[in-house]
Amino acid sequence: MNNLTKHEQKVSKEDRLKLLKQKPKVIWLTGLSGSGKSTLANELALKLHNEGKLVYVLDGDNVRMGLNKDLRFSSKDRKENIRRIAEVSNLMLDVGVIVITAFISPFIEERKNAKQIIGEENFVEVYIKADLRICEARDPKGLYKKARAGEIPMFVGITSPYEEPINPNMFIKTDEMTIQESVDFIYYNLEF
Amino acid sequence: MNNLTKHEQKVSKEDRLKLLKQKPKVIWLTGLSGSGKSTLANELALKLHNEGKLVYVLDGDNVRMGLNKDLRFSSKDRKENIRRIAEVSNLMLDVGVIVITAFISPFIEERKNAKQIIGEENFVEVYIKADLRICEARDPKGLYKKARAGEIPMFVGITSPYEEPINPNMFIKTDEMTIQESVDFIYYNLEF
Repeated sequence: MNNLTKHEQKVSKEDRLKLLKQKPKVIWLTGLSGSGKSTLANELALKLHNEGKLVYVLDGDNVRMGLNKDLRFSSKDRKENIRRIAEVSNLMLDVGVIVITAFISPFIEERKNAKQIIGEENFVEVYIKADLRICEARDPKGLYKKARAGEIPMFVGITSPYEEPINPNMFIKTDEMTIQESVDFIYYNLEF
Repeated sequence: MNNLTKHEQKVSKEDRLKLLKQKPKVIWLTGLSGSGKSTLANELALKLHNEGKLVYVLDGDNVRMGLNKDLRFSSKDRKENIRRIAEVSNLMLDVGVIVITAFISPFIEERKNAKQIIGEENFVEVYIKADLRICEARDPKGLYKKARAGEIPMFVGITSPYEEPINPNMFIKTDEMTIQESVDFIYYNLEF
């Protein structure tokens, strides 16, 4: 769509940040299913909220049934899934919100694209790492069992690759740290 | 995409609303190009911001170059354009933001769909009405001129229909009211 004229917004991002008194960013959690992304996202959100920060967790629950409900499992659709999540995160960043995303996002290319959309200075890639066998033993949603039984096509870690971040901003080993330690680690390494 | 398990979010919408001290809603402005949607959206946003409210204007500038940049002018793409805007508005509503959208959104069906996505109790449809000849005389972006010259296909009001809202929540005649009167009218008829 073209024929666009840029309107100057009367309330700027800076104005909103003064109101909110916070430094927004997008904390992008990536890792296998069962690695602890959602748990960590929620605990970190709670800590930030209790400090008076406006924070929002984007995850499968609020994205897949809504904005991305037209998307399926093809590699084109998976790429589009992550692109839209990045674009929504970027809009929320413009609002002034601290966004925590909890998606497997297994491909280096798609995370690189997300970083580009959001802007390097606002994008915090956090690799939530746990051994596949531990994730599979946890299996909080029973998905590994289904994947092993061939009931889920293209399941990351089993029938589809997970490409580890090469140089993430942070690295959390959830099989060696407690949830509280992990939350604190992220919290004290960032400025909100 | 299925195989979803619903996680309980640790910070709820209610928690965020207590922090923000406001009643979020989506104020959906609809009307012809040149009717005054963007001007009104920005002035209303400024008034709300000055009262300490967190408000965000969604318009072509922040949506079409990002989230919806893959969409063109087919009727399928136009429908998808409005659907995504409604879904993003709904996510921001969940964050607690007062959202003002400024899109022509010419079809009753697509606005009905937006209302369904956002929820009737949070959706405020405001018809920004000005006579076509007045909009065309204003022509702030020079688009009517281009449309008359055949340079823009499917231009609403000229070569594509605008379906007036049958029963909007509010009705603003921008050719009879000043901007300040229009802003006040919306402001005093809603509870933030």
